[in-house]
Amino acid sequence: MNQSAAKLSKGEETRAAILKAALKHASVAGFEGLTIGTLAAETGMSKSGLFAHFGSKEELQIATLEEGIRRFSETTMMPALSAPRGLKRLQAMCDSWLTWTSRNELAGCPMMTASQEFDSKPGPVRDAVVGHMQRLHQGLVKSVQMAIDNGEFAADVDAEQIAFELFGIISSCYRARNLFHDKQADQRARRAFDRLIDSCRSAP
Amino acid sequence: MNQSAAKLSKGEETRAAILKAALKHASVAGFEGLTIGTLAAETGMSKSGLFAHFGSKEELQIATLEEGIRRFSETTMMPALSAPRGLKRLQAMCDSWLTWTSRNELAGCPMMTASQEFDSKPGPVRDAVVGHMQRLHQGLVKSVQMAIDNGEFAADVDAEQIAFELFGIISSCYRARNLFHDKQADQRARRAFDRLIDSCRSAP
Repeated sequence: MNQSAAKLSKGEETRAAILKAALKHASVAGFEGLTIGTLAAETGMSKSGLFAHFGSKEELQIATLEEGIRRFSETTMMPALSAPRGLKRLQAMCDSWLTWTSRNELAGCPMMTASQEFDSKPGPVRDAVVGHMQRLHQGLVKSVQMAIDNGEFAADVDAEQIAFELFGIISSCYRARNLFHDKQADQRARRAFDRLIDSCRSAP
Repeated sequence: MNQSAAKLSKGEETRAAILKAALKHASVAGFEGLTIGTLAAETGMSKSGLFAHFGSKEELQIATLEEGIRRFSETTMMPALSAPRGLKRLQAMCDSWLTWTSRNELAGCPMMTASQEFDSKPGPVRDAVVGHMQRLHQGLVKSVQMAIDNGEFAADVDAEQIAFELFGIISSCYRARNLFHDKQADQRARRAFDRLIDSCRSAP
């Protein structure tokens, strides 16, 4: 790639700056309140400037959600894939998942917010969040299955069940952090991950 | 109590009907969109009629949340208190918690929705949802502690940790039900409850 291709154009830079502000907003206040108007007020840009990049509230919501999914994938799931297949990779995924919001300077997880807001609202935003959550779930199922195939986990472990329970731990961690401001939230989540993983281990 | 005192007045009946519709709305679409205007359209009442009962959007939101908390308490937590203290009561709470939305003809849990929407918005709605979630958490902690005191659970079980994990299971169940439309959601939650409870049992 030559230098000029790697550089963002002025338009791309502006779009990236808008999405950064939008993601921050959505991680705190959700997607419903994410309108061209509120974002114009927050970024100091004109409404018409924002309209040039995102034609409607829904387009802005989808682009913001996709930006969140991209960041989650790039900063959280992709790095975990460099860990060896099986138990180590599963542990890397859980560790990385726990810290992803703070590493991305987000107050909460925008996809978690979106999944609550759009679970009963059919449309492209719901489709995008369901797609993300299903890929995440399948990624966890696959890692558990690899640990079974490796002999690290017992053969009768139900990978779907473990992925279901892993998500619950993260979810409870977010409540403890954001609603209760509980300083032990992360420690509790780590302990829960360890217990769940230990319960899957094959007999020595 | 004489018959006339037990009967609802016309005003009280109307208020109850409004709150029923509002709770249904909030369980699907959340509290942010719960305005006097949208509720007037849904109930067929006039805006001024609604204003007579709830002076503002925020008053309507709080009254709706309180109605959800009251129903949860009356139909879910109170009945579980009739089970014997300790393990049986904890199991009754978990069972009852899993079915509370369907028994109340709600698509989702309004308090769960509110806790996501208001976790970063200080004010009386957030205060009400934090109060509810903390009472629920403390109720679970207390039941686990009773099971420890009874000798049903091992002495080194961390009651706060178990309550943290129980909430995660319910949370994952809601995602599986409402976002994935997974018919096995409830079965997975029951299996997770059983595993968690079994891991706490004292050695025979």
